[in-house]
Amino acid sequence: MVPPVFTSSPTEYRPDENSEEECAPITPTTKGSSFLFDSSILADEIVGHVPNGLRVRPLHIDDYDKGFLHVLSQLTSVGEIDRSSWEWRFRSMQRTIPSTYFVCVVEELDSTRVVGAATLVLEWKFIHSAGSRGRVEDVVVDESMRGKKLGVLLNDVLVRLAKQMGVYKVSLECNDKLIPFYEQFGYKKDAGNNFLVQRFDGHSKM
Amino acid sequence: MVPPVFTSSPTEYRPDENSEEECAPITPTTKGSSFLFDSSILADEIVGHVPNGLRVRPLHIDDYDKGFLHVLSQLTSVGEIDRSSWEWRFRSMQRTIPSTYFVCVVEELDSTRVVGAATLVLEWKFIHSAGSRGRVEDVVVDESMRGKKLGVLLNDVLVRLAKQMGVYKVSLECNDKLIPFYEQFGYKKDAGNNFLVQRFDGHSKM
Repeated sequence: MVPPVFTSSPTEYRPDENSEEECAPITPTTKGSSFLFDSSILADEIVGHVPNGLRVRPLHIDDYDKGFLHVLSQLTSVGEIDRSSWEWRFRSMQRTIPSTYFVCVVEELDSTRVVGAATLVLEWKFIHSAGSRGRVEDVVVDESMRGKKLGVLLNDVLVRLAKQMGVYKVSLECNDKLIPFYEQFGYKKDAGNNFLVQRFDGHSKM
Repeated sequence: MVPPVFTSSPTEYRPDENSEEECAPITPTTKGSSFLFDSSILADEIVGHVPNGLRVRPLHIDDYDKGFLHVLSQLTSVGEIDRSSWEWRFRSMQRTIPSTYFVCVVEELDSTRVVGAATLVLEWKFIHSAGSRGRVEDVVVDESMRGKKLGVLLNDVLVRLAKQMGVYKVSLECNDKLIPFYEQFGYKKDAGNNFLVQRFDGHSKM
């Protein structure tokens, strides 16, 4: 995946690597870790039953080589992400305080490949006593693993995780045919509330 | 506003104040600033025309005493936020790298009161070449200032800001009667896409 592609904006800032190592605040639980967030958060009571041969864990820095982006590409446009961009995005997500990005993956133990992924993103607020709301994003299961209810597994994990994080609500966007699927996790179509969007990339639907 | 109310979660972490002062990475443009983000981002071409006697600026740490929370309370439940919680939330938003929270306010110059507010939140992604999507949140104008098109002003600012930040899309949720209002800024109801939600606080609608 070349050439390097960085997101750029006037406020995006890459600290000097040395000073980052010395000074960047990393949550104590992830300091020095290669997991995106403390893997102990995905305790048994959050993860529930996982089929034999699989495990649910946080995204890992090495998942660049383990098919995570290939799985995401079955959902929408991934574009070009070289290793440097990958590491920068991963570390910037990992460094958030309070923690904001909970990318969970399903790993096939034999192959160590990522075969499913889903993200809980928290938005920290002033409202609701400086609370947070959660959003479920980028839920996808590898085509080779469909029909095994891994989507159910991932969604169950994310709802339990959102509750544990203390969000006052969790939401997602889904197309018409997926409404019954998501209702099983407790979501309801918000009567009278509408999702409005405008796109600037000219082609994508996600 | 007492007693102190903190959001708490297993991963929320308050760094030691001294080490935070020395080490927390603050975007160069906001380092030492009391604005939430670099105020030069709200350049004339982003802000557009502002009625006499008002200005649009980033949220400021002193807005705790200038009516910002009172304005928000006209939108939804604010709850109890003491000064310590306020400062913690403000600084955690300010510290995000890449910048994530763009809370813009309308200030009445004579009174120095906040009379309107709106937030652009960025979610940083792996998809779309490690791009970002934007969301417009918590748009509200003080009841004393309604009818002056300050909601239009704030929404225009946020759409231009989102474009400048390079998001691949920007979205919002709104109730049925506000769809025509938001269409003027370029938003469209996403045909076949639905907003699903579940709430854990037992009462709120936002």
